[in-house]
Amino acid sequence: MSDFFPTETFSKRLATVRDIAAQAGLDGVIVTPGPDMEYLISSKITTHERFTALVLTKDATRIIVPGVDVADLKKSVAGQLGVEIIGWNDGEDPYGYITEGSYAVSAAMTADHLLELQSRGISTVNATQVLAQAFIRKDDEELAELRRASAAIDEVHRQVPNLLRAGVTENDVAKELERLILEEHEVVDFIIVGSGPHGADPHHDHSDRVIESGDVVVVDIGGTLASGYHSDCTRTYVVGEPTDEQQKIYDVLQRAQEAGLEFAKPGVTAGEVDKVVRDIIEEAGYGEYFIHRTGHGIGLSCHEEPFIIAGNDFVIEEGMAFSIEPGIYIPGQWGARIEDIVIVASKNVEPINKTPHELVRVG
Amino acid sequence: MSDFFPTETFSKRLATVRDIAAQAGLDGVIVTPGPDMEYLISSKITTHERFTALVLTKDATRIIVPGVDVADLKKSVAGQLGVEIIGWNDGEDPYGYITEGSYAVSAAMTADHLLELQSRGISTVNATQVLAQAFIRKDDEELAELRRASAAIDEVHRQVPNLLRAGVTENDVAKELERLILEEHEVVDFIIVGSGPHGADPHHDHSDRVIESGDVVVVDIGGTLASGYHSDCTRTYVVGEPTDEQQKIYDVLQRAQEAGLEFAKPGVTAGEVDKVVRDIIEEAGYGEYFIHRTGHGIGLSCHEEPFIIAGNDFVIEEGMAFSIEPGIYIPGQWGARIEDIVIVASKNVEPINKTPHELVRVG
Repeated sequence: MSDFFPTETFSKRLATVRDIAAQAGLDGVIVTPGPDMEYLISSKITTHERFTALVLTKDATRIIVPGVDVADLKKSVAGQLGVEIIGWNDGEDPYGYITEGSYAVSAAMTADHLLELQSRGISTVNATQVLAQAFIRKDDEELAELRRASAAIDEVHRQVPNLLRAGVTENDVAKELERLILEEHEVVDFIIVGSGPHGADPHHDHSDRVIESGDVVVVDIGGTLASGYHSDCTRTYVVGEPTDEQQKIYDVLQRAQEAGLEFAKPGVTAGEVDKVVRDIIEEAGYGEYFIHRTGHGIGLSCHEEPFIIAGNDFVIEEGMAFSIEPGIYIPGQWGARIEDIVIVASKNVEPINKTPHELVRVG
Repeated sequence: MSDFFPTETFSKRLATVRDIAAQAGLDGVIVTPGPDMEYLISSKITTHERFTALVLTKDATRIIVPGVDVADLKKSVAGQLGVEIIGWNDGEDPYGYITEGSYAVSAAMTADHLLELQSRGISTVNATQVLAQAFIRKDDEELAELRRASAAIDEVHRQVPNLLRAGVTENDVAKELERLILEEHEVVDFIIVGSGPHGADPHHDHSDRVIESGDVVVVDIGGTLASGYHSDCTRTYVVGEPTDEQQKIYDVLQRAQEAGLEFAKPGVTAGEVDKVVRDIIEEAGYGEYFIHRTGHGIGLSCHEEPFIIAGNDFVIEEGMAFSIEPGIYIPGQWGARIEDIVIVASKNVEPINKTPHELVRVG
């Protein structure tokens, strides 16, 4: 077993992927290091220019790796599952172990390897789309980890009111947040403390800006658990009291986010979820200030399918997990965002972040 | 200008790449975030699932980026050079800005983007090979930075004898090395302290093993300067005195490494350099213990072309930079490696690591 899941979890996942690939008429699946490989054999192996791939075909499960990595792999889940481990040494040809045919390949495979495979008569499609049922729908073990991750980041948000006040800098707050995130997670993924005008830039991280009384402050934080699963949650705070205008706009945002939570369910498309959320903000007259998609999938990677974005026909299914996180950004003045991770149940979605959605008064 | 090079450096690089692409009969070059983009427009922009690309065609230089990154790019070298900056927002189609044709693409481009481009009638080849003259040959500014990086890591190796002695652990030594590397670099890339049997695993990093009298210890360290250029240097140490057998094997290794330095020059192939080095170790009877390639290119990435590896017909040219780093690894007992970065001059190569090659007695 891995440190987190029993070996049969991986055995089941491999079988599922193999079945879906066969049903899709593919000869196999080529998985390179990254979240797909972590999902299938619990391997966090990294690769650089040396080709490393887990290859599933109808008859075989093989992993092709640089010779120096063979010993570690034998001791890992791959070894326990009886995956055939093929070590290759510098100067040998690793691509020759893959027979001609049509394969789904990891979205993370880099062009040097992909172009080389294609030049050898291997036809390729993006595994994320073809194997959506396996790679995008989470199994129970994964959903449990995502719940743990969301509870972990909720615990950090619960402590934000103790940190945020007039006179401290965004960097001061970020430093405390780093410590708190690490109390609950293995790794800090990102920390956004967007106060006042900085809140209007969704990509701002944190700066030496001194937080002032009356500032609206966007706090978007996330981390990774030891199991590899991510958290990601935004709440918006105000130091003191908001203006009437700010409260009015925030209320629109909260209504839009909650409409998304209400609307999302199996059978609707990702694009439809985006539209429901966006329409409310547009109808209130703030459409031009909602400048990003409504959300993204989450799991072993922080951003993955389904992307909750205009025009995405991807159909939401039970077991998926994604964020619903509209924002309204008034350039040069302030911004606000509300973000929950949801998991899709049989008839609706459940937000697994549990802290309240209201604009939080602090300081 | 960037923080390190004048704007005209980038303007010259862009013109060179455009010229080579045209001569190769290509319609353009598509550069994704990573070392290629850093080289061409000094941008350390990172990307995830949102398509980001610098596109050079005969008539235009454009960068396609998520809308939130436009403001920063305008202030950067890309803005100063008048690169057309095209921001796209979530839900829009970024790939449509690239017209059909044949393009060289960055080796680091991921499959999700590459497969999407291919599906739209864009034919693709690996830019690293086609644009070798630009991407692999370093200009004077780059060579100066590589010299600085090598001098920086030499300074760390010069202090290793003060750290290595019986009774301390590999982790103790690594911790001190981390501090010393950061005194000379912006980032620590890796630290290998392979003592005794751990030295026989080229991928070992460091552990709680207590270093003993008589241990041979491989120390392979590298970092990144603020300019983005990397260092990478290995020396082998012995605590006390080596056995006669160890000294004899080390002498073979030193002879092989120096033969590589002597042989490498413009006009020979990377594979031939590997063979010259490998032959000496094989003739002495230790061929089976030299289990990796002889070296790798270095620059804005730590490992890049030219790979000094059996069978690589890539022709060495003036201005390239790579490592020559044979090793001999006696499984379960000990190992040794000697690594210099060299830059290719008009008739030979110059090692830019300057510390002696001998097995260094410490403790």
